[in-house]
Amino acid sequence: MSGASGWESDRNASLLTDLYQLTMLQAYWREGLADRAAFSLFFRQLPRSRNYLIACGLEDALRYLEELRFTEEALEYLRGLGFFSRPFLDWLADLRFTGDVFAMPEGTPVFPNEPLLEVEAPIGEAQLVESFLINQLHLQTALASKATRVVAAARGRKVVDFAMRRMHGADAALKGARAFYVAGVDATSNVLAGKLYGIPVSGTMAHSYVQAHPEELDAFRAFVRLYPDTILLVDTYDTLEGVRKVVQLSRELGGDFAVRGIRLDSGDLALLARQAREILDGAGLDEVEIFASGLLDEHGIARMVGEGVPITGFGVGTRMGVSEDAPTVDLAYKLTEYAGVARQKLSPGKATLPGRKQVFRVESDGVAERDVLAGRDETLAGRPLLHPVMREGRRLPSASPTLEEIRARAAEEIAKLPEKLRSLEPADPPYRVEVSDALRARAERLRARFEGRARR
Amino acid sequence: MSGASGWESDRNASLLTDLYQLTMLQAYWREGLADRAAFSLFFRQLPRSRNYLIACGLEDALRYLEELRFTEEALEYLRGLGFFSRPFLDWLADLRFTGDVFAMPEGTPVFPNEPLLEVEAPIGEAQLVESFLINQLHLQTALASKATRVVAAARGRKVVDFAMRRMHGADAALKGARAFYVAGVDATSNVLAGKLYGIPVSGTMAHSYVQAHPEELDAFRAFVRLYPDTILLVDTYDTLEGVRKVVQLSRELGGDFAVRGIRLDSGDLALLARQAREILDGAGLDEVEIFASGLLDEHGIARMVGEGVPITGFGVGTRMGVSEDAPTVDLAYKLTEYAGVARQKLSPGKATLPGRKQVFRVESDGVAERDVLAGRDETLAGRPLLHPVMREGRRLPSASPTLEEIRARAAEEIAKLPEKLRSLEPADPPYRVEVSDALRARAERLRARFEGRARR
Repeated sequence: MSGASGWESDRNASLLTDLYQLTMLQAYWREGLADRAAFSLFFRQLPRSRNYLIACGLEDALRYLEELRFTEEALEYLRGLGFFSRPFLDWLADLRFTGDVFAMPEGTPVFPNEPLLEVEAPIGEAQLVESFLINQLHLQTALASKATRVVAAARGRKVVDFAMRRMHGADAALKGARAFYVAGVDATSNVLAGKLYGIPVSGTMAHSYVQAHPEELDAFRAFVRLYPDTILLVDTYDTLEGVRKVVQLSRELGGDFAVRGIRLDSGDLALLARQAREILDGAGLDEVEIFASGLLDEHGIARMVGEGVPITGFGVGTRMGVSEDAPTVDLAYKLTEYAGVARQKLSPGKATLPGRKQVFRVESDGVAERDVLAGRDETLAGRPLLHPVMREGRRLPSASPTLEEIRARAAEEIAKLPEKLRSLEPADPPYRVEVSDALRARAERLRARFEGRARR
Repeated sequence: MSGASGWESDRNASLLTDLYQLTMLQAYWREGLADRAAFSLFFRQLPRSRNYLIACGLEDALRYLEELRFTEEALEYLRGLGFFSRPFLDWLADLRFTGDVFAMPEGTPVFPNEPLLEVEAPIGEAQLVESFLINQLHLQTALASKATRVVAAARGRKVVDFAMRRMHGADAALKGARAFYVAGVDATSNVLAGKLYGIPVSGTMAHSYVQAHPEELDAFRAFVRLYPDTILLVDTYDTLEGVRKVVQLSRELGGDFAVRGIRLDSGDLALLARQAREILDGAGLDEVEIFASGLLDEHGIARMVGEGVPITGFGVGTRMGVSEDAPTVDLAYKLTEYAGVARQKLSPGKATLPGRKQVFRVESDGVAERDVLAGRDETLAGRPLLHPVMREGRRLPSASPTLEEIRARAAEEIAKLPEKLRSLEPADPPYRVEVSDALRARAERLRARFEGRARR
């Protein structure tokens, strides 16, 4: 997990930002604006089909902040753009991220207006990192949040990530496999994700393998010789014929037959699974499991599980891989304090709450009841969700959980949510997020001060 | 554009695949199945909201094929999985891609069942590369196809890619910026994409910059001092007040005032643009342009352009960045020939056409009329769209167009499409894709042969 594969360890990673971050940075530098700023990363609204999101992506965010620097190659490119002065570029060569970060641990359920992460740093540094932080937390949070629904729908049946090929590029395929695992998915077909993150890898066989043999049964025989406990794909030509060939193979092999399951990948999965189960059971192959794939999402899985379809595992691809019903979240990163003074944006529909924050989760009998969004310095009832994870540019030792720990935390935190939030249907009313009295008063004071000033 | 930033130049890139590709590869190797196979990469259906797709991603596909190899580190990981024998891993260490590739040049409009790309290679090699090829062509084709709609809607007004932060990870943000540029987008805010691909970079300022100053006008003054011809963001507090401050700044600066434009990022963009235009014109600032951003897509842009809203440029983010209305395409990679014999998959709803193919685009008076999907060896009326791009694992010199050439080709090819296809509304009837008589006969012969065999 050293980031060996990631573009983020690349010497150009500092340029993975929007141009205006760099032009603003030069402006701050030129104006001598270097006071500490606080930025908050949050979303305003849940996608319609989500009752909560799962915070994910902090690991990559912290690594980026620790490693941020502009190489000679990057500076050379910037020089060529003509926007930047030589003294500024010299200063940029020495720039490091020196700020503090508070964040929700990965795997925490998060609600509208709650910071997933807050950055405090000299304003230029804090501003510069916006684009990258949003890019990574957005991707990983969106995908983990989708996957928790798939996992919930499967009710303990195995879920395997088959999404790599239709995810949006290599970075998404890798970070996504990790996010899915955090959310409770059992394994991934993505080999590199397995290597980088230690996630169990899993796979069966493709139609082309069957087609490359003279007869389907020849393909099954050859594959089982090499992988005795494999899962055989039975729908290349005629699904039920394919199942019968598995039965025939079991007769040929007798006691050596160890095939773990069959995979259905097309047609009416529920109907075919029942028919296949009947054929298998009729041949005494009760132990052979049925695995299904092909355009599955949480709704298809929930329906089949609810109807008692005899499927014990699901390979889930495209629809989970891009979080198809909600591929984006309106994640934003907003200035909330500068030089010790709270700041607030008043753009219509995009107003922000001022200052550094804390979120308290109030639980009753182990079930989350409501969250309270408060100022960082408040102490209220409930469990604080934001913790210090980086100080002066260095990650705190407490902020390096293993992936297994993150996954266990996610399961534990999700289990604490009210049941209606864990359902696939929109929770009505949604989970309650209150604003503390002190924070509300602060926002109103600030707005009044602005309006007073505007009237002058 | 050396791939310096890309994970794909990483020593682990060969592992960015699905596990079953490797288990099948070992099976082919063990069985001695090494005859040449042909695979075809295509999609079956257009997303509902697309009349055509734009082929994109070939550059990355070819680079991957040229550089494919398993390093000691990759082999070490595979060894630890326990699925692979030592002799196989030794063989894998020397594996290179030695096949031929035919493809549509990037920027070609493509329709259902038409191969974007065909691979011919020993079956193990051809199979192994499936996951990666789909991952990259899927992403880039989906994003380029969305962007052509945005560009069409803007009718010559400037379109800038602001999507980086909400695209799915770093790879998508980079490849996507390139795909958008191919599709006719004018510039990107993504600095690293600018560096890697030579795309013009562009940017304005953020709300936080305004908020970090005591007064909005202070921020404008400071920014303009450094960037005299910048675009000022006017909606941090009150949009029209912001515009008036730009007017005030023009009076302060007199002949030195060179501000290129203002940006609106919230509220009713059409209304605010008209009001802002009035204020600017009233102050003699006719030359100051109005740039808009904020949850724009092709429909919002088309509406404003159609109504004559005085906006001269659009910053387009999230909705283009994930191709929100169609984030995936059912791109598939299917075996169509093995050992000189055509292959066909008959799974319900997923049947394929056999053999290597060519696509002929039949044009009349410079307008595309229909495509004919044919066997590779057929010669029919019309322009063949698939060209050889790689032979024996080496890219052909003709297959290295510059990005500018690709962009020009895309514009030219799109201009040849019938007008109703270039509209944002679904074309009814859709573009005609015929199957040649010879290809149809071949498919029927093969199906009859299979059914005859199945009946035995």
